[in-house]
Amino acid sequence: MGQGKRNVAESDGDQGLIYSSPAIHERRRRILEETRKMIAEHGLAGFSMDEVGKRAGVAKRTLYNAYQTKENMIALAIHEYFERYLQHIPYTGEIGSIQRNVERMIFVIQRNRQLRNYISALMSIYFSADSDSDIWNTMHSMAVESNLQWINGLKSKRQLQPWIDPVRLADDIVRMEYSIINDWCRGKIEDDQVVYHLVRACLTIGAGAARGAGRKEIEDMLTEFHTSGIPLPTLPTARAKKG
Amino acid sequence: MGQGKRNVAESDGDQGLIYSSPAIHERRRRILEETRKMIAEHGLAGFSMDEVGKRAGVAKRTLYNAYQTKENMIALAIHEYFERYLQHIPYTGEIGSIQRNVERMIFVIQRNRQLRNYISALMSIYFSADSDSDIWNTMHSMAVESNLQWINGLKSKRQLQPWIDPVRLADDIVRMEYSIINDWCRGKIEDDQVVYHLVRACLTIGAGAARGAGRKEIEDMLTEFHTSGIPLPTLPTARAKKG
Repeated sequence: MGQGKRNVAESDGDQGLIYSSPAIHERRRRILEETRKMIAEHGLAGFSMDEVGKRAGVAKRTLYNAYQTKENMIALAIHEYFERYLQHIPYTGEIGSIQRNVERMIFVIQRNRQLRNYISALMSIYFSADSDSDIWNTMHSMAVESNLQWINGLKSKRQLQPWIDPVRLADDIVRMEYSIINDWCRGKIEDDQVVYHLVRACLTIGAGAARGAGRKEIEDMLTEFHTSGIPLPTLPTARAKKG
Repeated sequence: MGQGKRNVAESDGDQGLIYSSPAIHERRRRILEETRKMIAEHGLAGFSMDEVGKRAGVAKRTLYNAYQTKENMIALAIHEYFERYLQHIPYTGEIGSIQRNVERMIFVIQRNRQLRNYISALMSIYFSADSDSDIWNTMHSMAVESNLQWINGLKSKRQLQPWIDPVRLADDIVRMEYSIINDWCRGKIEDDQVVYHLVRACLTIGAGAARGAGRKEIEDMLTEFHTSGIPLPTLPTARAKKG
């Protein structure tokens, strides 16, 4: 029942722009950067292909040739920015470990706190009743994938409860993540509380889904955060404007 | 950090209509019934006080006198319908027990499955970026209260993990509940899967938040549902139209 199967990263929407000359690579960077900027400024409703083309110095027709639809272009812009950020996280935990997943969560929310308009616009799209499926699937699956590494790690060690399906669990953790981020965007969760709130909520689900040593490890982390606080990295100032 | 403190049930918005003659009581019933019907048909965007007044046979001015705002009237209509439904659930579990909370979840989702348009409209309001705070608070707090009975039961038996704050936990369980119901409304969770999906997700959070005998009890229920399936009551056909 995993919903995040489809992913723009697997589409060949802008292959022509990816595997090409430095000039075309630079043009692609500009287009996706202006796409994110416009989302942060105007949301999906006020998004204009004309304006993105103008700002990036590209004909509107070129945008459609490269990306087919506005929604596909936006989905790619979101995905590219997120993946690029992930690659720069100074992980200390191994792939598939709970440490690494918590490090990812902390860094991503810290980044989000510096990109409130952009993230608010994404949450509006994600939770809107008629949300575009390209954008929704991209946002959902990129968050699912990160959590799945950890969940599959538990599974391979036989540390998941028998009633847990890894993909469904990842879907539910993502529901919780986005729901908390959405409520932070709307001022229902305090800015200085959101990191710990999100990590605690997701680890609590994890503790309920795990057993044995896997669970013990999660509970040790929760105990540590409860007694000593959650470690918050300081990030260089991020801007949605700059891709 | 609990968000559901404010609740229309505590306001005196329509006191004049509550404590009055049978005729006025009947008029109130008609107004709230037409309010729900209009939400199910047109959502918040297409909601018309004129039309509700016309259908209920009441002057628009009377509606404003009794309820002050459209949003307050809608919040009351939602709250009244939900509370009335809760009162008719044939609980077997004691107040504060996990059994009772699971019974509530199962009955409420089974009801929701018969009221898809109405519930979809509510979810759109709840998750919209500019959602009205009267309606949001009412929807959030009525779900929080139900979960809090159970969570406070665990707390009084010292069966909650030390890092768990009961109100924050209830907020998070409600986030999960509404997020799953929202995804069901949008076709992302199958209709015949939604009851078990929601119960499993909420119990998994509960298992992560509980310890000792409290946790054992939750895990026993999850094991039972996993091996024998979840018991689904058959409900009489419900209609949003009829209050």
